[in-house]
Amino acid sequence: MASEFGKLLRVALFGESHGPAVGVLVDGLPAGEAIDLEALQQFMERRRPGRDPFSSARREPDRPRFLSGITGGRTNGSPLCAIIENVDARSSDYAALADTPRPGHADYTAHLRWKGWADQRGGGHLSGRLTAPLCLAGAIAAQILARRGIHLGAHLASVAGICDEPFPLEPAKELFRALSAKSFPVIDEAKGLRMQEQIAAAAARADSVGGVVECAATGLPAGLGSPRFGGVESRLAAVLFGIPALKGLEFGSGFAGAGLRGSQNNDPFWIDEGGAVRMKSNRSGGVLGGITSGAPLLFRAAFKPTPSIGQPQQTVSLSRLEPETITIKGRHDPCIAPRAVPAVEAVTAAVILDLILEG
Amino acid sequence: MASEFGKLLRVALFGESHGPAVGVLVDGLPAGEAIDLEALQQFMERRRPGRDPFSSARREPDRPRFLSGITGGRTNGSPLCAIIENVDARSSDYAALADTPRPGHADYTAHLRWKGWADQRGGGHLSGRLTAPLCLAGAIAAQILARRGIHLGAHLASVAGICDEPFPLEPAKELFRALSAKSFPVIDEAKGLRMQEQIAAAAARADSVGGVVECAATGLPAGLGSPRFGGVESRLAAVLFGIPALKGLEFGSGFAGAGLRGSQNNDPFWIDEGGAVRMKSNRSGGVLGGITSGAPLLFRAAFKPTPSIGQPQQTVSLSRLEPETITIKGRHDPCIAPRAVPAVEAVTAAVILDLILEG
Amino acid sequence: MASEFGKLLRVALFGESHGPAVGVLVDGLPAGEAIDLEALQQFMERRRPGRDPFSSARREPDRPRFLSGITGGRTNGSPLCAIIENVDARSSDYAALADTPRPGHADYTAHLRWKGWADQRGGGHLSGRLTAPLCLAGAIAAQILARRGIHLGAHLASVAGICDEPFPLEPAKELFRALSAKSFPVIDEAKGLRMQEQIAAAAARADSVGGVVECAATGLPAGLGSPRFGGVESRLAAVLFGIPALKGLEFGSGFAGAGLRGSQNNDPFWIDEGGAVRMKSNRSGGVLGGITSGAPLLFRAAFKPTPSIGQPQQTVSLSRLEPETITIKGRHDPCIAPRAVPAVEAVTAAVILDLILEG
Amino acid sequence: MASEFGKLLRVALFGESHGPAVGVLVDGLPAGEAIDLEALQQFMERRRPGRDPFSSARREPDRPRFLSGITGGRTNGSPLCAIIENVDARSSDYAALADTPRPGHADYTAHLRWKGWADQRGGGHLSGRLTAPLCLAGAIAAQILARRGIHLGAHLASVAGICDEPFPLEPAKELFRALSAKSFPVIDEAKGLRMQEQIAAAAARADSVGGVVECAATGLPAGLGSPRFGGVESRLAAVLFGIPALKGLEFGSGFAGAGLRGSQNNDPFWIDEGGAVRMKSNRSGGVLGGITSGAPLLFRAAFKPTPSIGQPQQTVSLSRLEPETITIKGRHDPCIAPRAVPAVEAVTAAVILDLILEG
Repeated sequence: MASEFGKLLRVALFGESHGPAVGVLVDGLPAGEAIDLEALQQFMERRRPGRDPFSSARREPDRPRFLSGITGGRTNGSPLCAIIENVDARSSDYAALADTPRPGHADYTAHLRWKGWADQRGGGHLSGRLTAPLCLAGAIAAQILARRGIHLGAHLASVAGICDEPFPLEPAKELFRALSAKSFPVIDEAKGLRMQEQIAAAAARADSVGGVVECAATGLPAGLGSPRFGGVESRLAAVLFGIPALKGLEFGSGFAGAGLRGSQNNDPFWIDEGGAVRMKSNRSGGVLGGITSGAPLLFRAAFKPTPSIGQPQQTVSLSRLEPETITIKGRHDPCIAPRAVPAVEAVTAAVILDLILEG
Repeated sequence: MASEFGKLLRVALFGESHGPAVGVLVDGLPAGEAIDLEALQQFMERRRPGRDPFSSARREPDRPRFLSGITGGRTNGSPLCAIIENVDARSSDYAALADTPRPGHADYTAHLRWKGWADQRGGGHLSGRLTAPLCLAGAIAAQILARRGIHLGAHLASVAGICDEPFPLEPAKELFRALSAKSFPVIDEAKGLRMQEQIAAAAARADSVGGVVECAATGLPAGLGSPRFGGVESRLAAVLFGIPALKGLEFGSGFAGAGLRGSQNNDPFWIDEGGAVRMKSNRSGGVLGGITSGAPLLFRAAFKPTPSIGQPQQTVSLSRLEPETITIKGRHDPCIAPRAVPAVEAVTAAVILDLILEG
Repeated sequence: MASEFGKLLRVALFGESHGPAVGVLVDGLPAGEAIDLEALQQFMERRRPGRDPFSSARREPDRPRFLSGITGGRTNGSPLCAIIENVDARSSDYAALADTPRPGHADYTAHLRWKGWADQRGGGHLSGRLTAPLCLAGAIAAQILARRGIHLGAHLASVAGICDEPFPLEPAKELFRALSAKSFPVIDEAKGLRMQEQIAAAAARADSVGGVVECAATGLPAGLGSPRFGGVESRLAAVLFGIPALKGLEFGSGFAGAGLRGSQNNDPFWIDEGGAVRMKSNRSGGVLGGITSGAPLLFRAAFKPTPSIGQPQQTVSLSRLEPETITIKGRHDPCIAPRAVPAVEAVTAAVILDLILEG
Repeated sequence: MASEFGKLLRVALFGESHGPAVGVLVDGLPAGEAIDLEALQQFMERRRPGRDPFSSARREPDRPRFLSGITGGRTNGSPLCAIIENVDARSSDYAALADTPRPGHADYTAHLRWKGWADQRGGGHLSGRLTAPLCLAGAIAAQILARRGIHLGAHLASVAGICDEPFPLEPAKELFRALSAKSFPVIDEAKGLRMQEQIAAAAARADSVGGVVECAATGLPAGLGSPRFGGVESRLAAVLFGIPALKGLEFGSGFAGAGLRGSQNNDPFWIDEGGAVRMKSNRSGGVLGGITSGAPLLFRAAFKPTPSIGQPQQTVSLSRLEPETITIKGRHDPCIAPRAVPAVEAVTAAVILDLILEG
């Protein structure tokens, strides 16, 4: 119930950061869908650690092994299970931290939640490493959606206060493709360089920075989703907040919209040359009353700065109930947001496919 | 599935704005809990239309009738159903709008979703009126939580750009009580007056404004919730986004936190005089890794400006596929946020009680 | 979770036998479906108490009031809530029994489950009266199915050891219609008279008898359902065992099939004149591996004899923990099975519609 | 949704008979529970093919590999995934059958359900082989239950019409242990020999026989479960019908009880020497109104004769739509029931643990 989501398309994650493997079970995929393993691997690469100078130095090949659900390169209708073996886990990095929870991490809360029995090596089941199998499931969903004319992509809307250009009103799938090919996914390369400078500056001070990811999906049929708690926003939100470090979410004009007037924030309707009902702006983020309007789905997610920093921090010894100071070594990204980009896309693809299957 | 939420505590809403009644079915309440009907009615009053000069002129007594689940003033363990009859619905106000969807409303999407069969009078099932039974369920949950030492409250963090004082690090239950007694729930009354001036100014121009609601809950046991998609943030988000007009949500430092450094955003641990583990700040909003930390739960929700405005707006005729201009009459709040405050509390109380029952 | 079922079609029951009303909430009905209220009332009549000399003397008009989900006689896509007011409840009949649980009833277990707070008047929420709103939901589902060429019916396969003729290999919808029009639903009227003699004989001795209901559904598309715990048998079983007094369930040859050889129990395939794949027998009850085969769905459900009997029975005083003897007065059916027939059909219709919606 | 079950304890099966591996994902296990791997392996042995002369000649070591959820021999609170590699699959046995569905099997329905894409080698995901990971999950649940004083066991109540002695009113855990140690689990050894003669006789004629499994659980707290569709019978039934070849289920007196009088079928209450409320008989199977009564849980499940038989059978060619005759070779049990015994126990243990966790 905790590590799974979805209604007709069910996705469940398992594994611990330093256990034998992490993996995903996906039940409800349509049968007969070809899986492009090369494209899937490329998607996985986007979140893989050790890929650029700023990301964690952990080296994981992240090659999935399919245990079920695929026959001859196509989904066979039964639950798909894929695992990724953990090969480069260094548990010694974490041994000293068992008693002194890291500020901003789930060490303390996991300790309480599982009454001292949690596997806390490398964050255990709560580690960002679990986004690897999440991306795997999402990449499969995205391939199936693309065949139905639904495309999606994401970029870094801001890092350390530096803002990228926002998505245009109707993002082309070529833009999504271009973004997914970049090692640092921004629309405006110059802004991207400035973001990377900020990340480098923080890293140099043994500190970290946060960022905001903007995601869009086009080609969604209008009329998808349900009212209230079954709405598109509700269903996406429930899963997105399961991505580690995600602390804020807004659709369309979101928080800024709360400062606008109704006459500014409403999206006027018009009829295009083909006789289709459309909207002149997209302050609703493609969703009205929980149901898709035909405009692109558009949202932004805020990621906090990586809590693992090299500076001394105040914590406590849980056994001695005394103040302690810790300095985290390990291998950590000074900014999580770039590697969160494919995770946000993965969640979005999986949730949209679930909504599509519901019809 | 759409209009219900919860795992062990199940809450399902039903009814249409201009139908015979709206109501709520609540399954899973602990048995033997006394329901204070007077306190419940006071909670309901906070969202009732026609209460202050700015809110909708619709006059509804909003007195619930309990059909099941209560015997002798106490819950009996079986599903609780309560209904509120609709008495002051004026469907003629909406008759002309059936073919010309209101910008910013769900008229168009509901029309598509139910293939033309939706009851669209007054917004039908998607109307804000459904927050009345939602408040009813939440008020019951809040009474049960209070007996377990868990208190919660909310206020208008901002309206039309005017900001109230934020909640203190550890809000006292007296503050929650004081806020719930105010007809315009703000901490800083002077700011509240300025907000009301802005609302009045927008109303005078047949326009509307949005706002942000901040909500906090104290007394939550640490270790509540689950990782990933079963986390406290995920479960709250899924339900909160079911409140009409809610378009953004952030926990703790949220979007602002994404602009901070890790050294600024992490909450340092300390040991209080009683030997308890605590945190010096609450930028995590009381949740780490989806699990409560013992710090107060803290989040903000952005509400868009009321889409119903009296100014002429561009829409289309769905039958003729031609541009149209509409001017909405009806009775509408120029700012939804004040009446959303109890709805946010209601959702929070219901979700927390569900988490508590899960143990 | 307890009093609700279904995946895309959600059905939730509420109410207590002697409370203000019983009712049902149905979410997920397709929009635009006409509801034939007269046919619905006829379906309800089949389970209504006080209809024949053997059934309970309680007189309830059982006329539903629709609170939501219907506009102009058609479903509007939003949750449908219908209630039936309780008018002829005589709680005094039960007052003395609060401390001395009736053997074979849920008095004792409900007392424990809700820690003494259960409404136990007339069986409270666990009363057979809750099959009234269940029939209401099922009757609506059956109307929708009939429009899609799916028909279903049930009869008393046996009462007190007297067996009716079984359903033929391909029951015609005219047979279902004829059965539903009978006050005592059997295929062979002579057997029905003998059954009624047995019921009268038991009633004369202040005793009761049990019975078996056979149900069939035709026109089901082949390939419906899912493997394992999502299979047609699993989903029907979960709901059927929620009908009070149902203690056994078998599909196709069931328990008798367990005594056959494989060569006797397998259903051989053949090709009919129209080129369709069919089966020469139906020992699988229309389901293979949890998935419909195109043969009629066929199952039997065993109902225990009514536990409320007029003979003295041994019980205990829960307060004094001493043996007691009780003699149940009240108004009770000497055989539940006849009134269970429409409840079995109702469940079957609702579950099939849910499976159909899943596609 | 199809291959998973449970509410707080979630169990999901995956894998195909001739794929790389079969496995199970279990989410919601209490943390800190020791797993006795040797006892677990012994439980698995009871359903392993190739164990006695009557069972399938397929040789599988069935040694699970744990990928997650266990640290240092104890559950760590995160989802537990265990896989069993398939090593002795001979797909050539099935190659010819792809076009000619085996009577009594799910070949035809799986072909329709997944539109021709199902992996049908050895029954694919619908194979009885999936009961291996099911037993694994159940064995873990049974170990946890035993620590809480809850014991369970099952035996062959009948095979080919030969009946074993039924369980006594209060089966001792020693009886359960003795049964689990037998290669042919019956209470009365003489009856067991006669059953085995019948199985051998059927096998000699290239035929098969069915059987009935009786299962009991003791030590269950009274008051467990919920009314209606959340009752103990409903929740067990939903999962039990997911065991391949299970076609009937009855609790307590079941179908026989439907032929009794109420005065015969009711279980009278009494007070034992320790002042506890008990029942003099157990015709209700330990469940009244869906809730446990404190008497042992008791039910019987009917298993059809193995559909795979060596005699020529009538089928059709799906590609040519012509009649065909097939003779199944492969390696098959002439009676499934003995190997179904641990699967029934496994399901029962998992469902009871789920109910216990719900409190």
